[in-house]
Amino acid sequence: MNLIKMRSKLFKILILTLIVITSSFGQTVQDEKVIKKLFDAALTQSSAYDWLNYLSNQIGGRLSGSVQAEEAVQYTYNELKKIPNTSVYLEPVMVPKWVRGTPEFAYVETAPGSTFNVPICALGGSVSTPSLGLKAPIIEVVGIDELAVIGKEQIEGKIVFFNEPMDQTLIQTLQAYSKAGKQRVNGAAEAAKYGAVGVIVRSISTALDDYPHTGSMYYSSDPSIPRIPAAAISTKGAELLSNTLALDPSIKFFFKQNCRTLADVPSHNVIAEIKGSEFPDEIIVVGGHLDSWDLGDGSHDDGAGCVQSMGVLELFTKIGYTPKRTIRAVMFMNEENGLRGGTKYAENANKNKEHHIFALESDLGGFTPRGFTFEASDQQFDRIESWKPLLEPYMVTAFNRGGSGADIGPLKQVDPAIVLSGLRPDPQRYFDHHHAANDTFEHVNKRELNLGLGAMVSLIYLVDQYGF
Amino acid sequence: MNLIKMRSKLFKILILTLIVITSSFGQTVQDEKVIKKLFDAALTQSSAYDWLNYLSNQIGGRLSGSVQAEEAVQYTYNELKKIPNTSVYLEPVMVPKWVRGTPEFAYVETAPGSTFNVPICALGGSVSTPSLGLKAPIIEVVGIDELAVIGKEQIEGKIVFFNEPMDQTLIQTLQAYSKAGKQRVNGAAEAAKYGAVGVIVRSISTALDDYPHTGSMYYSSDPSIPRIPAAAISTKGAELLSNTLALDPSIKFFFKQNCRTLADVPSHNVIAEIKGSEFPDEIIVVGGHLDSWDLGDGSHDDGAGCVQSMGVLELFTKIGYTPKRTIRAVMFMNEENGLRGGTKYAENANKNKEHHIFALESDLGGFTPRGFTFEASDQQFDRIESWKPLLEPYMVTAFNRGGSGADIGPLKQVDPAIVLSGLRPDPQRYFDHHHAANDTFEHVNKRELNLGLGAMVSLIYLVDQYGF
Repeated sequence: MNLIKMRSKLFKILILTLIVITSSFGQTVQDEKVIKKLFDAALTQSSAYDWLNYLSNQIGGRLSGSVQAEEAVQYTYNELKKIPNTSVYLEPVMVPKWVRGTPEFAYVETAPGSTFNVPICALGGSVSTPSLGLKAPIIEVVGIDELAVIGKEQIEGKIVFFNEPMDQTLIQTLQAYSKAGKQRVNGAAEAAKYGAVGVIVRSISTALDDYPHTGSMYYSSDPSIPRIPAAAISTKGAELLSNTLALDPSIKFFFKQNCRTLADVPSHNVIAEIKGSEFPDEIIVVGGHLDSWDLGDGSHDDGAGCVQSMGVLELFTKIGYTPKRTIRAVMFMNEENGLRGGTKYAENANKNKEHHIFALESDLGGFTPRGFTFEASDQQFDRIESWKPLLEPYMVTAFNRGGSGADIGPLKQVDPAIVLSGLRPDPQRYFDHHHAANDTFEHVNKRELNLGLGAMVSLIYLVDQYGF
Repeated sequence: MNLIKMRSKLFKILILTLIVITSSFGQTVQDEKVIKKLFDAALTQSSAYDWLNYLSNQIGGRLSGSVQAEEAVQYTYNELKKIPNTSVYLEPVMVPKWVRGTPEFAYVETAPGSTFNVPICALGGSVSTPSLGLKAPIIEVVGIDELAVIGKEQIEGKIVFFNEPMDQTLIQTLQAYSKAGKQRVNGAAEAAKYGAVGVIVRSISTALDDYPHTGSMYYSSDPSIPRIPAAAISTKGAELLSNTLALDPSIKFFFKQNCRTLADVPSHNVIAEIKGSEFPDEIIVVGGHLDSWDLGDGSHDDGAGCVQSMGVLELFTKIGYTPKRTIRAVMFMNEENGLRGGTKYAENANKNKEHHIFALESDLGGFTPRGFTFEASDQQFDRIESWKPLLEPYMVTAFNRGGSGADIGPLKQVDPAIVLSGLRPDPQRYFDHHHAANDTFEHVNKRELNLGLGAMVSLIYLVDQYGF
């Protein structure tokens, strides 16, 4: 190459670079503007908090198969219908129906006639006790592994008291939940192998208080292992029980619950969609789950995620943004005790040969958003990380790889290239309320809920702009 | 230099570099370990939450000059005395004594005999109304600047209703507070210049509710400008009043309050100190303010900052850490309506020729810590920034330059090289509670409070290790 040619080539490269820099700079400025608009609208114009007020205070706890769950389906369907340019439909799905029955009752008997009550609640999926209740000696273990150490001789005929607390030193409370949660999910199935007649599980809670926390539990699929009743005890009740056992291991425990599993019933996912203007076949999902446990009103778990997902469509409309890709808000049914909604959604997506490029779930409460986790390839994650500076002004700074959400998980099987993401709100208060009677509307802060929505709608906007 | 000499020199440099790298790596590992210990202890062994429970629920609101404020002095003094190797003393300071008197009362009169009540509270420092109350026409302005636009003719003889809301789109709520706060602090002095007879100020709150928020206000030092009574109205009350005025500008407003300022009374800063083992003359201060407003129990403002500061000394002792420098926890008196404690502390530091290298204040509530702000030179800030990775595992990631805390501010005059710092907790909920009857203990989350303490004690540890 001669010098003139080289110069000319260098000049071309320079100009091209300038164009790229200028246009990407222009793009960034444009993105900054849209994201500012979206956050402003989230903080001042969103209906999310009012929707949550209705879901929580007019409908309440929305256990799968309950009348309230179907009321929530109808309510969110009707509200989504009010958003312009949005088509809304119900996706039928059969769901399990477990019912709690009359309030549970438990006491510790330190001597015949000498008792004190402790707060319990049946675990979701548990069988009832005999109708007059179950009284037996009780033995404490810390975690499932201790069963084998203690052995059948010590356990047989007794109630097993699983008393592993959440590890308070873990900053990410979800890690502590996952660890201590095993005793709730599998405790009954495991204890039954050693001849236990019932299990009482320390509530998986970060707080020391009187609220028992429910949650799903599963029996062994092996029919030879008996299905024994399982209940959660409040953390203060657990401390009291443990201290009493330390004084006298021969005490007895009584509990009575008449929960039961009925036949599956029909229910629905609620789906609202804005058709993409350029790439209508590329689908972006944002969702939460509409069912909840029955003790509180399910405001944080997961009313918050539902109204935030609805808010994404509302805010795009309010600021006049026309998505290039198809955006779907999905209220999944039955996350808590079956995941039937998420499974059905993926099943139909597969059947209809739909192409999902991204799914975002909010299911860790309506707290101040700290960031997102992503299930993505290196290349996809590089793109995502390039968006980070756009969210920093909103104190949304943690972009990490990691699990996303239960309901959207099944989409990975349908579309292996899909990017899955989970909103990560500040995790310190969630497990004080999770699955308990104090998961109620007054514990949701309006600004925190709306900032979560702002983070979500901004991320969805960026995915819509740039795809994967 | 010959080759052998050169080689030998290069070798020396290499070895030195390796030593530096290794030792600084070792240092980092050591710091990581200590900080982990401090956070673990903050989350599992701290007395901070129990202290706050006592301050809030056994003592309550601690207005300067009140019996409760002196009870708090005695209580924290006694509790600090229990921490080993800690000397505790009281620093006398005269404080203003403003008293609210009987509960305030206000109504809107839409026609003679036709009224509705609205929730108000006197602003701190305000004079009373006439003993039978004050009734006058009322005129709405948004911010102080509008007074000049409207003019004396329109304002004279009326009550001025300052109705500037907090800007909800600002992510840093403190910015919105500072902006809207001017009408509270200076509204009465300014409106009086235009002949107003009283002022009603929209509560500086992020929430829309029925709680009026008090706070300090100051009259003009010019004796020719009348001192007119000033009260805050709840945000819902302000909306109602504004809507009513829009329908009929001729309505009247009535309010009655019998607050007054009495003579100054003696009070105290509470100071607890662990003497430095290597550099006892280099003093590090960590503090909050012990006084509060009287409507709530002052849990977030600033019981939280006090018990966190006490917790710093407690945790050093609990993990067996011996500080190199002198660490002082200071409970400042009278931040809210006079800053006499902070001023006195600096005055005595100056008098005693003390050398303060660092002061940290926590006065933005007991919420999840997001980071710190620093008043520091470039060089000092470089050192501070090098510590950032050590706090990232605890989700404490925002190290920014900016204002620190009111009480420690006066130390800058004494020691211009001092570094001042403020804990920056998540700012979304603070102004829902600030200066109102709902600043109460149940709105403080134990983990959030303790994580704030963990962040503070870790920062104090690093300053103690490396100085400035």
